[in-house]
Amino acid sequence: MFKRLLIANRGEIAVRIIRACQELGIETVAVYSHADADALHVKLADHACHIGPEDALHSYLNNAAIITAALESKADAVHPGYGFLSENAVFAEMVEQAGLTFVGPRPETIKLVGNKDSAREAMKHAGLLMAAGSDPVSSEKEACLLAEKIGYPVMVKPVAGGGGKGMTVAADNSELINAVKHFPAAGGSFYLEKYIADARHIEVQIVADSFGHVIHLGERECSLQRRNQKLLEEAPSAALTPAMRQQVGELAIRAAKSIHYSNVGTVEFLLDQSGNFYFMEINPRIQVEHGITELITGIDLVKTQIQAAAGEPLAIQQQDVVIRGHAIECRINAEDPVRNFLPSPGQINFYHQPGGPNVRVDSGVCAGSIVQPYYDSLIAKVIVYGHTRGEAIKTMRRALKEFHIGGINTTVGFHHQLLNDPNFCNGDIDTQFVTKFLSSQERKLALDSNVWTMMNGNVAFGL
Amino acid sequence: MFKRLLIANRGEIAVRIIRACQELGIETVAVYSHADADALHVKLADHACHIGPEDALHSYLNNAAIITAALESKADAVHPGYGFLSENAVFAEMVEQAGLTFVGPRPETIKLVGNKDSAREAMKHAGLLMAAGSDPVSSEKEACLLAEKIGYPVMVKPVAGGGGKGMTVAADNSELINAVKHFPAAGGSFYLEKYIADARHIEVQIVADSFGHVIHLGERECSLQRRNQKLLEEAPSAALTPAMRQQVGELAIRAAKSIHYSNVGTVEFLLDQSGNFYFMEINPRIQVEHGITELITGIDLVKTQIQAAAGEPLAIQQQDVVIRGHAIECRINAEDPVRNFLPSPGQINFYHQPGGPNVRVDSGVCAGSIVQPYYDSLIAKVIVYGHTRGEAIKTMRRALKEFHIGGINTTVGFHHQLLNDPNFCNGDIDTQFVTKFLSSQERKLALDSNVWTMMNGNVAFGL
Repeated sequence: MFKRLLIANRGEIAVRIIRACQELGIETVAVYSHADADALHVKLADHACHIGPEDALHSYLNNAAIITAALESKADAVHPGYGFLSENAVFAEMVEQAGLTFVGPRPETIKLVGNKDSAREAMKHAGLLMAAGSDPVSSEKEACLLAEKIGYPVMVKPVAGGGGKGMTVAADNSELINAVKHFPAAGGSFYLEKYIADARHIEVQIVADSFGHVIHLGERECSLQRRNQKLLEEAPSAALTPAMRQQVGELAIRAAKSIHYSNVGTVEFLLDQSGNFYFMEINPRIQVEHGITELITGIDLVKTQIQAAAGEPLAIQQQDVVIRGHAIECRINAEDPVRNFLPSPGQINFYHQPGGPNVRVDSGVCAGSIVQPYYDSLIAKVIVYGHTRGEAIKTMRRALKEFHIGGINTTVGFHHQLLNDPNFCNGDIDTQFVTKFLSSQERKLALDSNVWTMMNGNVAFGL
Repeated sequence: MFKRLLIANRGEIAVRIIRACQELGIETVAVYSHADADALHVKLADHACHIGPEDALHSYLNNAAIITAALESKADAVHPGYGFLSENAVFAEMVEQAGLTFVGPRPETIKLVGNKDSAREAMKHAGLLMAAGSDPVSSEKEACLLAEKIGYPVMVKPVAGGGGKGMTVAADNSELINAVKHFPAAGGSFYLEKYIADARHIEVQIVADSFGHVIHLGERECSLQRRNQKLLEEAPSAALTPAMRQQVGELAIRAAKSIHYSNVGTVEFLLDQSGNFYFMEINPRIQVEHGITELITGIDLVKTQIQAAAGEPLAIQQQDVVIRGHAIECRINAEDPVRNFLPSPGQINFYHQPGGPNVRVDSGVCAGSIVQPYYDSLIAKVIVYGHTRGEAIKTMRRALKEFHIGGINTTVGFHHQLLNDPNFCNGDIDTQFVTKFLSSQERKLALDSNVWTMMNGNVAFGL
């Protein structure tokens, strides 16, 4: 096992990795930008290295500075977390060339799945269903011709990158021309895909060792998104029958095996109204929402990543995986829901986490923390467990009521309203749910109401 | 089900009951003394009633004020928590006479088990093993004669009350005379019991409805005590084989059935080196350490109390109880371990709870809370889960490292040292363990060391 691991990340995922390492007896090295000198992950790690100025490009995305920090701190492994360099094959390769272990899949796997075009090719080959789509597109004109062939509405997707960034739906020619403008004129950087209406985002957690063993840990329902960014996730999905669960799990394993995938990853699908699972992408890293899978399976995914990277074979087989109960995660962002989710950086002057039975908080902040404007606005995740979905919803509601963050605006109140929506409670959701939820007139009124102020911060605590 | 429940308590157990009520859809009424106007349980409850001045006798022990608050706030049930009025049969009776439901056993049960003499009689009748003991003792002279008959060392125990308060071990005549001095001259207020050396404190959680169904949820190991006050508990006990677990579980059920026990309760035993379980007492209430049983069984004991009090039959049978993994609780007290655990009241100026996988915190405080000198010094409980005892220990260590409480002294650092003791890690513990642990010379040095300062408060956070 590793002696010392450098975490090439910040925020809650860096804290999460520190926790796993402490329990495994591995020393941790945090890295931090100038802005993060007092951040929670720096306080909790055993060692810390400054890697650059506040802008991510010169710090958390700075390959060379991070490798230097790893070598100077005598780390023997590097965990990239999610975002930043986690899907950067060049970085993974640099880590290995420096004689260190990269906690993740092999560089060539990261490269393969990171390019949507090659990923689609590989998955077609593995027999997965694809939404009707195009090859990478070279011009606006070609795009319009292809779109008419596929049939509107279409999704415009960048070839590189993941996590839902840069995707747009175009309902007609003019929307398509507008969407395509954002891509470089050189061409070939985006492609089109048939837009699947009323779909659910279903993803399957896979775990693989370096000996070819692959298992899946069931699915996560991630349909609640705003601008393709997930807000609330749950596991299992209320939409899947046991047969569908087995089917999509086997698809994910087939996908992983076909590309000799190792370490932890996620295969994302769109589930249409007819029960078809369309391949979307493979995320070759830990995901924000991994905790809900941990709660229903009892398997620690970050420890599993580290163990797999250290060359340990999988400790369990598929038949050992038992899914129990229901888990929900709410992503708490430093954003103001009343002002169209505008980021709300600033200093947290009061911070009280929920506690008690069946509540887990993965946070990257504490009282006094400064939420920086330079990075992702995710500050904490509230993850709850219930024997049933209904119980999990009730526990989440009371946990959110207990969560008090002062000094900045957060999405705590937004989530509380979401958790009280009758359609959500019925499990009647799809990827357009949040958009509809936010656009309803009542919702707008509620957004202005006292409820949000009470939930956001310290008013209820009289501070 | 109840519409509104008054919580006749404060601190973490009041918060715990509020959480259960919120998830059950029951409104909560907090009560508070003058000193507790800004306490966390008051902030989290739906309603709050002032019941008296800071001294507990005129507030949290004030029967009449609490009943008045319950009636005025239109509560239909009263939950007593633990301590205060929870074992007061008169209070339970007053609640019922006021037309409200008392969340606990019937008043006559509380009375029966609250008197050590009648409890011993009833349990002897039910066939439980007793440490050789005496009837209530009337004079110093009688005590000395009885002690010589029983054989030193003997325990001197008050007839009334529970929770280990007022108990003393006497090794000889002079120690006995000294111990007996603390009891009223009127006599009959204490009795003697053979002291069992190298024993473990093992207690069994029982759950009963009002229809005569009784099940047990396994045992808790509570041997780690200082002056008969529990500090750290775990479940299951490393000392019990499955056969012993079944045996002591059946003893507990027999005990409960023999007195027609209803609602949640605990039967406490001493386990000697030969594997004999000696009956100690029955606690007719929720216990501080109930959370570890919740983690290994998945059963919410506070909800179960409320449901049983509302007349619901038990939802599960004995064969449905599955014990999984291992749980440990550390009681975090506002005390200074370096100064012989002197209470450390004051304002908490920094507070950061541990989080992440398998960690639960039940806390009665937040940043800004004032720890009052008038009440129990327990401010929070850290409760962790692991697949094995070893995993649970590792998770507890890292959770304690994350727990930062500034402004007062706490037992966080003490627990961290305990969790690193090789004998503790081997499961080699008994009721004298903490005394020996604290008396060792190395321990004294460690007590003075930086470790304790680093653990206690905000030094490590540079605040």
